Amino acid sequence: MDKKTKQLLTRGVVEIIQQKRVQEKIESGKALRVKFGIDPTGSDLHIGHTVNLWKLRQFQEIGHTAVIIIGDYTASIGDPSGKDTTRPQLSGEQIQENYKNYEKQALCILKKDHLEIRKQTEWFGGFTLKDIIRLMASRSVGEVLAHETFRKRLETDSPFSCHEVLYPFLQGYDSVAVQADIELGAIEQKFNLLMGRVVQKYYGQEPQDVMMSPYLIGTDGKEKMSKSLGNYIGLQDESNDMFGKVMSVPDTEIVPYFEMVTDMDSEELENLKQGEELSGTKARDMKMQLAQTIVSTFHGKSAAQRAEKTFLSVFQAGDTGKGARDVVVKKQEYVLVDLLVETALSPSKAESKRKVEEGAVYVDEVKKTNPYETVHISRSPCVIRIGKRRIVSVRLKD
Amino acid sequence: MDKKTKQLLTRGVVEIIQQKRVQEKIESGKALRVKFGIDPTGSDLHIGHTVNLWKLRQFQEIGHTAVIIIGDYTASIGDPSGKDTTRPQLSGEQIQENYKNYEKQALCILKKDHLEIRKQTEWFGGFTLKDIIRLMASRSVGEVLAHETFRKRLETDSPFSCHEVLYPFLQGYDSVAVQADIELGAIEQKFNLLMGRVVQKYYGQEPQDVMMSPYLIGTDGKEKMSKSLGNYIGLQDESNDMFGKVMSVPDTEIVPYFEMVTDMDSEELENLKQGEELSGTKARDMKMQLAQTIVSTFHGKSAAQRAEKTFLSVFQAGDTGKGARDVVVKKQEYVLVDLLVETALSPSKAESKRKVEEGAVYVDEVKKTNPYETVHISRSPCVIRIGKRRIVSVRLKD
Repeated sequence: MDKKTKQLLTRGVVEIIQQKRVQEKIESGKALRVKFGIDPTGSDLHIGHTVNLWKLRQFQEIGHTAVIIIGDYTASIGDPSGKDTTRPQLSGEQIQENYKNYEKQALCILKKDHLEIRKQTEWFGGFTLKDIIRLMASRSVGEVLAHETFRKRLETDSPFSCHEVLYPFLQGYDSVAVQADIELGAIEQKFNLLMGRVVQKYYGQEPQDVMMSPYLIGTDGKEKMSKSLGNYIGLQDESNDMFGKVMSVPDTEIVPYFEMVTDMDSEELENLKQGEELSGTKARDMKMQLAQTIVSTFHGKSAAQRAEKTFLSVFQAGDTGKGARDVVVKKQEYVLVDLLVETALSPSKAESKRKVEEGAVYVDEVKKTNPYETVHISRSPCVIRIGKRRIVSVRLKD
Repeated sequence: MDKKTKQLLTRGVVEIIQQKRVQEKIESGKALRVKFGIDPTGSDLHIGHTVNLWKLRQFQEIGHTAVIIIGDYTASIGDPSGKDTTRPQLSGEQIQENYKNYEKQALCILKKDHLEIRKQTEWFGGFTLKDIIRLMASRSVGEVLAHETFRKRLETDSPFSCHEVLYPFLQGYDSVAVQADIELGAIEQKFNLLMGRVVQKYYGQEPQDVMMSPYLIGTDGKEKMSKSLGNYIGLQDESNDMFGKVMSVPDTEIVPYFEMVTDMDSEELENLKQGEELSGTKARDMKMQLAQTIVSTFHGKSAAQRAEKTFLSVFQAGDTGKGARDVVVKKQEYVLVDLLVETALSPSKAESKRKVEEGAVYVDEVKKTNPYETVHISRSPCVIRIGKRRIVSVRLKD
């Protein structure tokens, strides 16, 4: 197996069905169609989604076609996988709004050639009731209810609407519509991914193979990165924010992030994996490099450098150990989040807001809970701090 | 409650949900829309279907509208109620063919005014995937799997395809489409009938009420009349055949047939029910009257009278007790079923065929199994019989 094939089959991959066939397909030299579906349930993607975008990029690099499915129909149902309750159905307008930026975001990672971005509307827009009846006849109720999520919901009497049963059928039919050879997805999507194989067979196509990625751990270092848990790094986060969020990732996740959400050279990655555990200055340096790499991907190199500078200035200020830094401001009134940026206590409004919400922001030792509270500044200094180490003493300019 | 309302609520009715509301609706004087759905799974109806057609007629008589749904979509799925296996999906052409005669057949019982015959195509023809998603969100999987048939199939691992789950949703949506106030159906359809209530509510309509009829027992006197069991009287059976089939119904079913599949005056019916059990000549006379009534409904009075004559001539021939009747025929060769009619052993080809298939037909004491076998007739007589009593001695004309 050559280096690139090996990387394809192993980097950020937790299971392949069927491994042997995928290897044969790749080695056959045939141009493959590699599918990855995204449901436009939010307005932007987070770097958890990029695990499979990077995998698609690797396929593109050796001449295969990346086929991205914008799940504008499945989004209206909501993927039931791993959910213990029925998601609210999204309206057509919300969905439309949500996917507007997806292409732009995906193109930060993917190449424009060997790329198809397809909406389910193309094939489901004209789907009739007869088509649905035919599609749903492809599997038995017993098989579908064997889906772990479904089974659990039934067993625990959790909300479980009949329309959710459609989800795996639609995802499966996508593979028929785009004639997928391989489908990528997260491991929790296994049931839906395998559905493509069954449905393709039913419609007389060669069944696709399936490559599954592990979860990317979120910035909390504990849970899978996800929007609803708030531990995510959004692709549309401003550069300072994105940089800061990457820096907040625990040291143990540095290598997995390099592996899954950057294009770090595979040998370099191998060395990193083989080397000693990251800690101290070494960890900090690698994390700075990681933040640089990730911010560059979405905002360009110079924005990444500026973000690094901002980050350093804020944190070095806090790190001096000389107690409060003196800051003089020009206005008598500030919205709290603006004041935190103005005084360089925080790199961005979003970060400021998060810190307030975490309960880490104090003004004259009073904990603040409303990020948009107005703070009055006079000629006699007041002390503002985030946590214990980032402290300033602020007063109005004479 | 007046006489007509009482008849509506009780004659051929086994359960009403909700009885009180139906009575109120009827007594309110509002013109009601009473729905009855038929799946065109066969080319003709049998008198089991007429139980609810007669009920519709009773509603028409007091000014309400009968709404017949031709289930051209549900037929393509097949009603899973009471079935332990998935039905084969019918093609559009088969279904088209099947319902061509339905209107004509229904009009033997229903009046033309206050009648709507509607095909599901009207509303499901334009149904989109979004419509289906919305519809299927109206009930939980747990509720649908509580359907006894579904539950049994899952428990016994019987074939059960996902598309069958659509059936109750479609039947339910029919009620929305035609704005049904009341739906009629057989008791085994209870789950599907009640589905209309849920779906109507979900779409913001007042939920319909449901009136359920008992089974009509078939000509075998044992099982529910049904096509697949072969114990049915088809509305398109020729008159002699229909007459003969009614006469083959056991005495115990005479009263239920009068109640459910004729328009016998309700007082007369009451007397019949209150009177002593039918047997002997009395039973035979009542059954003749029943056969007359049923054949008249579908073939007119004079055809019914001719059928009675034919029936009597055949059976009186067998009843003489004088052994074989002599018959002279003109041809040397006959197809067996034709010969049985020619010799008046049987009133029709269809009846002849059935008798052969039952193993009741003998030629010179050899049991015949092929109804289309050629029988050679010579100048020396041969003996043909059906069972023990219908016997002829046949020879070729000199």
